[in-house]
Amino acid sequence: MNSFGKALRVTTFGESHGAGIGCVIDGLPANLKVDYAKIKEWLDRRKPGQNKYSTSRKEKEEFEILSGVFEGFTTGTPLAIYIANSDHKSSDYGSIKDLFRPGHADATYFYKYGIRDYRGGGRSSARESVARVAAAGVASLMLEELNIVVKSGVSSVGNVDGKKYDFNHAKTSEIFSLDKSAEGAQKDKILEAKNSHDSVGGTVVISILNAPKGLGEPLYDKLDSRLAEVMMGINGAKGVEIGLGVNSSKVFGSKNNDLMDKSGFITNNAGGILGGISSGAEILVKVHFKPTPSIFHEQKTLDKYGNEVVCKLKGRHDPCIAIRGSVVAEAMAVLTIADMLLLNLGSKVEHLKKIYG
Amino acid sequence: MNSFGKALRVTTFGESHGAGIGCVIDGLPANLKVDYAKIKEWLDRRKPGQNKYSTSRKEKEEFEILSGVFEGFTTGTPLAIYIANSDHKSSDYGSIKDLFRPGHADATYFYKYGIRDYRGGGRSSARESVARVAAAGVASLMLEELNIVVKSGVSSVGNVDGKKYDFNHAKTSEIFSLDKSAEGAQKDKILEAKNSHDSVGGTVVISILNAPKGLGEPLYDKLDSRLAEVMMGINGAKGVEIGLGVNSSKVFGSKNNDLMDKSGFITNNAGGILGGISSGAEILVKVHFKPTPSIFHEQKTLDKYGNEVVCKLKGRHDPCIAIRGSVVAEAMAVLTIADMLLLNLGSKVEHLKKIYG
Amino acid sequence: MNSFGKALRVTTFGESHGAGIGCVIDGLPANLKVDYAKIKEWLDRRKPGQNKYSTSRKEKEEFEILSGVFEGFTTGTPLAIYIANSDHKSSDYGSIKDLFRPGHADATYFYKYGIRDYRGGGRSSARESVARVAAAGVASLMLEELNIVVKSGVSSVGNVDGKKYDFNHAKTSEIFSLDKSAEGAQKDKILEAKNSHDSVGGTVVISILNAPKGLGEPLYDKLDSRLAEVMMGINGAKGVEIGLGVNSSKVFGSKNNDLMDKSGFITNNAGGILGGISSGAEILVKVHFKPTPSIFHEQKTLDKYGNEVVCKLKGRHDPCIAIRGSVVAEAMAVLTIADMLLLNLGSKVEHLKKIYG
Amino acid sequence: MNSFGKALRVTTFGESHGAGIGCVIDGLPANLKVDYAKIKEWLDRRKPGQNKYSTSRKEKEEFEILSGVFEGFTTGTPLAIYIANSDHKSSDYGSIKDLFRPGHADATYFYKYGIRDYRGGGRSSARESVARVAAAGVASLMLEELNIVVKSGVSSVGNVDGKKYDFNHAKTSEIFSLDKSAEGAQKDKILEAKNSHDSVGGTVVISILNAPKGLGEPLYDKLDSRLAEVMMGINGAKGVEIGLGVNSSKVFGSKNNDLMDKSGFITNNAGGILGGISSGAEILVKVHFKPTPSIFHEQKTLDKYGNEVVCKLKGRHDPCIAIRGSVVAEAMAVLTIADMLLLNLGSKVEHLKKIYG
Repeated sequence: MNSFGKALRVTTFGESHGAGIGCVIDGLPANLKVDYAKIKEWLDRRKPGQNKYSTSRKEKEEFEILSGVFEGFTTGTPLAIYIANSDHKSSDYGSIKDLFRPGHADATYFYKYGIRDYRGGGRSSARESVARVAAAGVASLMLEELNIVVKSGVSSVGNVDGKKYDFNHAKTSEIFSLDKSAEGAQKDKILEAKNSHDSVGGTVVISILNAPKGLGEPLYDKLDSRLAEVMMGINGAKGVEIGLGVNSSKVFGSKNNDLMDKSGFITNNAGGILGGISSGAEILVKVHFKPTPSIFHEQKTLDKYGNEVVCKLKGRHDPCIAIRGSVVAEAMAVLTIADMLLLNLGSKVEHLKKIYG
Repeated sequence: MNSFGKALRVTTFGESHGAGIGCVIDGLPANLKVDYAKIKEWLDRRKPGQNKYSTSRKEKEEFEILSGVFEGFTTGTPLAIYIANSDHKSSDYGSIKDLFRPGHADATYFYKYGIRDYRGGGRSSARESVARVAAAGVASLMLEELNIVVKSGVSSVGNVDGKKYDFNHAKTSEIFSLDKSAEGAQKDKILEAKNSHDSVGGTVVISILNAPKGLGEPLYDKLDSRLAEVMMGINGAKGVEIGLGVNSSKVFGSKNNDLMDKSGFITNNAGGILGGISSGAEILVKVHFKPTPSIFHEQKTLDKYGNEVVCKLKGRHDPCIAIRGSVVAEAMAVLTIADMLLLNLGSKVEHLKKIYG
Repeated sequence: MNSFGKALRVTTFGESHGAGIGCVIDGLPANLKVDYAKIKEWLDRRKPGQNKYSTSRKEKEEFEILSGVFEGFTTGTPLAIYIANSDHKSSDYGSIKDLFRPGHADATYFYKYGIRDYRGGGRSSARESVARVAAAGVASLMLEELNIVVKSGVSSVGNVDGKKYDFNHAKTSEIFSLDKSAEGAQKDKILEAKNSHDSVGGTVVISILNAPKGLGEPLYDKLDSRLAEVMMGINGAKGVEIGLGVNSSKVFGSKNNDLMDKSGFITNNAGGILGGISSGAEILVKVHFKPTPSIFHEQKTLDKYGNEVVCKLKGRHDPCIAIRGSVVAEAMAVLTIADMLLLNLGSKVEHLKKIYG
Repeated sequence: MNSFGKALRVTTFGESHGAGIGCVIDGLPANLKVDYAKIKEWLDRRKPGQNKYSTSRKEKEEFEILSGVFEGFTTGTPLAIYIANSDHKSSDYGSIKDLFRPGHADATYFYKYGIRDYRGGGRSSARESVARVAAAGVASLMLEELNIVVKSGVSSVGNVDGKKYDFNHAKTSEIFSLDKSAEGAQKDKILEAKNSHDSVGGTVVISILNAPKGLGEPLYDKLDSRLAEVMMGINGAKGVEIGLGVNSSKVFGSKNNDLMDKSGFITNNAGGILGGISSGAEILVKVHFKPTPSIFHEQKTLDKYGNEVVCKLKGRHDPCIAIRGSVVAEAMAVLTIADMLLLNLGSKVEHLKKIYG
């Protein structure tokens, strides 16, 4: 369905070329000071059309808070945010209304529902992520009260891997690159894809610092399980790793185990999560994105009547969805941690006594 | 919490060295013929102590169905299964009751709850997966009615990668290896780990054939998102991939997109899922497991009072959890598909008319 | 939280004097033809200011569908509806911003959240029910496809009881009275309350015809249990009965049991539900509403600092909330039945074979 | 489905004449001292066969805790309780296996599932309530830590109404009567029913004292809404009232509103709940039970083939289910309050700072 989170529950609605996109955030604690500039900042980071590595499509991303705030503070009631759509070019889509664009959800939405809004992918469009990012802008206020810090960046573009995770550099990089020394080659890779009317994949890293020990609700709301869920649910995500991730499957236990001394964990192969519960160490998540499916080559496909046809797309698309995907992944991390903070409140009877005693 | 699934909901309970492990399966359609031998077969595949590549610990895995079946058929009421524990050696754990075993959930359970059942890891033990496998044994009856086939196998052990996915070979392999030509080296790798009192990681592949088109409930119960969730929730899982997975992040869109002709998808980089909905192509999931954290080296750690101590484990453990993990991953795939089959029933008004009209 | 329903899930947001009220309807089957006039009709029935038995406050109740509809049909994606607020007189509320109006939620919202939007009761206002009614306008399209009919009316006002349930009469009655012969006295009772600056309680009856046998998910989503939940959740509801209700507690079993012959149930004391599952007989629910808490007498109360103060309300209020409450109760019945229709789809393996076979 | 509660989630399983009945309690805070005697006391209060006003059927009600407790304390993991069935007389049911007993769920289970366990009503039997009561025995430990007191009693039997709510008297009364002066006539009414092979309805009152202000999660998990849900979900319940209940629909607002002075609410017509949130006043719930449907008269009914037949029951049944129903209602109140205590923990950002700060 169209909601996620258990104690902090976000419901989103809207299609790419419909009236707008929105979300309802439910379960927010009362008395959080709502910082509109901060929410705008989140939306701006995700916004398309900011440089030549992104789509040239513009979105204004003016948001409106419809409910849940009174005199500048959250009231404990659902906070709804709405972002009206703009810069529509629905006419771009007329030619593809009956065919299934390769790599897109066109075929599967048609199979499932027997009807689909073909304009810009409708509900399956990455445009919907604006609602997730807006919600994270609100939820991040809660994390800030507890000094929890979530950061993101791009570690690789196509086969160009960075060597380090410099989240400060990522903030200033046009492609959110985590490694200044790889950034140039990564940019070149994006332009190579763009100039050949193609697209390219990429990988994103999320870091969460200062999360309290004890977040995660085993066995079926483990923190890593829930992070994997939300990350794999981002458009284009095809792989998720926690800590050493895939590489942990290649090594011996004596190399993988994180030993401890008085200062805490000596290594962090676990990526900050053991048994599905945060350990206090940095939480590290990696998300792998496929290349944008919208490319401008001629591609064989079917139409909805089962005929073989050639798909030749027009329009404007990001050559590498991982770039803006990093902001969405960061948003999902923020929302997941916020949910887990609330879910963990009942872990011990001592907590209840503190609140009610 | 301790339930997963939305329309088919499984709740598990029990600890490694408590009275037993059980599950309650809720939402099963009525009138499924319950095949006890099939459930036993599932449990037997997961059972430890079957060869030298596994732990020597024996478990009888006698299961009892406590409810939900009448005269051999499901009744639509919750089906509870209970497996009493046996072969306890709680005394093995006395020496570690106050310390945090590296790579285990000991520290985090203590942080979260302030109390932990240290015997065999308590609730965090891989022993709990017996309940998941039993539940899958029941849910698989539903998939069989619809000719959906789920298979699993081990694609790599440590750095020994197989080259192909031969699920038939996996069935007869002691280590569920997917590639006969790699199996010998994979076995050697396990014994190398075992003989050096160490452990080794591994990777598992799941294949789902004949799943109807249209499974998955976007945007927040996408099929891939939910598969990632349940797979990352298995003990020791650190990475999940769908289709081309991590490698899709390294290529161009023109290589990654799956074109179509009358016979269907020409390639299957997507792994059978587009926009979070099954496309009719084979669903392919890869799960990466870390090495068993229980190794028999001396390891630096802390005790619960914060003192630096040395952990020296005794006991019996799988040298490579990916082996038996493949059965658990297959079980989670079965349960996820069963849930999605039920959730999708309401996708079109035509379905309602077929049932109620 | 602010959602209800399991397979058909409605989330509402908005406050009385905020920007507007809205809902997100999730889980709607695709391919329902959306009838805007029908939705408007629902909103109009609930609308205040239509005659002297209701508040004189006007609301335009212009609704906008923000998502989930394409070319006139539902698409299976979330359908959001938004109704902007109008006719605000927030200034009416300045005098009560620090005190707890008797019978209202002012005190409890303050206790719970430490902050409250005092304008018109904020989130606790009956104004929110416009979202429920709009959602029911959409969900009723689904019931119509299956010929299920839900009706409502007012059976008593204060101590003036009607003797019969004439749902056709209720449609044309200004106070939705179910009994033409009692209607005059009921109207007089309302005017008596209004003219003495007071208010009066009332009782509503809901009838559901043609619901398929088998709706309701025992043991904890029983149809009667869920109806009781949603009815008691309407502002001002203090009692809910199914079938013979309270009176069934006063009689012998030989009087209460409904016997059967070939034509079905001979009596219907059960109100169409046995064991939490619909039996095919008419489903009958009764909801008792307290008098509007907003009256214009001087009343002793506390302010939020704990001081004893006198509350003297101004403003415009329904003298009997049961009248418009009947439309809200009907809406909740529609939404509950729609949810149950979807939840029941998986009750038998035969259903799955019909859809997927 | 077969679970209830959101933060404290109870899942039950089992049928009247199956192996046994059980529950899994999930979300319990860690570190509650588990008092086995207290749980036994709860089961004993509900136990049949204790005097001539109850069924003569005996149940041993030996319970076993299968998980979730370590060294006498809860660990935060799911606590499963199992009660094996005993004193079966399945042979009693052979004669009714194909017919629908009037007032029972036989017909509706057959309609819904196409199969039913006819022995003692299977899953629809009141026997299942033993799991609810056991769960309440555990959850009540949490309420005791916070000095919250839940009490129950029988206010009327058939048309014999008591005049007062003396919960202390109810504890010692064989029929849990709330009014010593009515008790004799109430007992006579039960025996009158019993001796005429009939049954009789009755009404139960629940009182909750010392619940913290602020419990209840509006708008769709209001405390009164959730209480109505769980009470109407008890076998045989046909009406639920909060506070003044049905009578509040008969009066003017000036009589119904509860004014306040420094000592708190001067009256308590609201029954301790305003806007779905606890106000600090005594929470009062009334539940109306129909007469036991199992009576020993000849009754016209259908068999599952649609033939008209005569039902003539044998066996042992409570002449008045409200008596033991009062213990079940008390149990559901305890579980609901426990759930609400956990859900409310995140209501204010101040709470998060207290726990994590």
